[in-house]
Amino acid sequence: MEHDIIKRLSQYKKILQKLQSLGLVRVFSDNLSDALGISSSLVRKDFATCNITGKRRGGYVVEELIERLNTLLGKDQEQQIIIVGCGKLGLALMNHKGFANDQIRVAAGFDVDPARINSDAPVPILPVDKLAAFIRNQGIQVALLTVPEDATLTMLEHLRQCGIHGILNFAAVPVKSTPDCHVQNVSLALEVEKLFYLIVSTAENANSEGIAS
Amino acid sequence: MEHDIIKRLSQYKKILQKLQSLGLVRVFSDNLSDALGISSSLVRKDFATCNITGKRRGGYVVEELIERLNTLLGKDQEQQIIIVGCGKLGLALMNHKGFANDQIRVAAGFDVDPARINSDAPVPILPVDKLAAFIRNQGIQVALLTVPEDATLTMLEHLRQCGIHGILNFAAVPVKSTPDCHVQNVSLALEVEKLFYLIVSTAENANSEGIAS
Repeated sequence: MEHDIIKRLSQYKKILQKLQSLGLVRVFSDNLSDALGISSSLVRKDFATCNITGKRRGGYVVEELIERLNTLLGKDQEQQIIIVGCGKLGLALMNHKGFANDQIRVAAGFDVDPARINSDAPVPILPVDKLAAFIRNQGIQVALLTVPEDATLTMLEHLRQCGIHGILNFAAVPVKSTPDCHVQNVSLALEVEKLFYLIVSTAENANSEGIAS
Repeated sequence: MEHDIIKRLSQYKKILQKLQSLGLVRVFSDNLSDALGISSSLVRKDFATCNITGKRRGGYVVEELIERLNTLLGKDQEQQIIIVGCGKLGLALMNHKGFANDQIRVAAGFDVDPARINSDAPVPILPVDKLAAFIRNQGIQVALLTVPEDATLTMLEHLRQCGIHGILNFAAVPVKSTPDCHVQNVSLALEVEKLFYLIVSTAENANSEGIAS
């Protein structure tokens, strides 16, 4: 559910930017709901959830709305992240175009292996003992964690102690959030399992419908 | 919601395998709910959704249950997938330990770039014109799509036509499922945005609580 609202906030923002570039100053929940193919009450509910209040007669000022969405989505300033664990996946994520498209900048990578430090990656790869100072000096809040599985928990704890408030965890073992550190677990194996499940259940439904008719 | 049930099915299976290794032959919804910290009615609801029926007095045969879960999760046979697009991300996913842990095997990679074909990847990298025959001969149902963004839609359509029923799409542009092909969009940028959103909203809540008290 949390996931869905953030997705919509991001979609609202993209449409609002287009509308703004067309010269629109005010926008109504019906405009946004039409553009996204959702109900206007859902738009209003999302905005209420985010403490976004409209003007009288239900309109919103486009500029204010974009500003508020940027704050919520962390885009009022450049989003800097770090990548901890610079194996194949970590290096691939440094080059991930999807981040740049969304104004997310990888500030640095970190690794325990000296052989990976100073390799020709697109961003500097630093030794892990520089983590605390880097996070403090650069004001980093979010880290992508791509270390081997057996190092996940130790490194997670270290990142928390260094002041990281958000971690995207790519290890197969899901990790829980704490009050001061949100963890999103990206389990690619689970995503693949989900596809196989959908394929099997679609086939079963098709078969039982075939029998019924 | 779909996501949650699949996650639970996978968790049921893991616990059942442990119980089976301890010699248990039958299991009750209360056993599973205790182990997972959920309500037993949710366990029964999940099983009803999956057409899993219990014995009289509410028990289930462990072996039958595992077999059924394996079918649903696609684990009654080895899960083979292919990776289409063998850039940095595609190559990193070929080496992803999380897949092997979950009995998911990358059968081959495909790329249009002849320079990437026959590189020293852990699985063969084949030219795209071999896709159709490979999918047909190996009975592949699921593909990971890691091609550049501008090639996503064309390749997606090609994979559908080749008989692929499930696609994990890593491009920033989300793609919709069709009745014969399920698409899961993995947007890493969205996951990062989500973390920033959670950090901002947690801080705002903490502030407003501070003011209120």
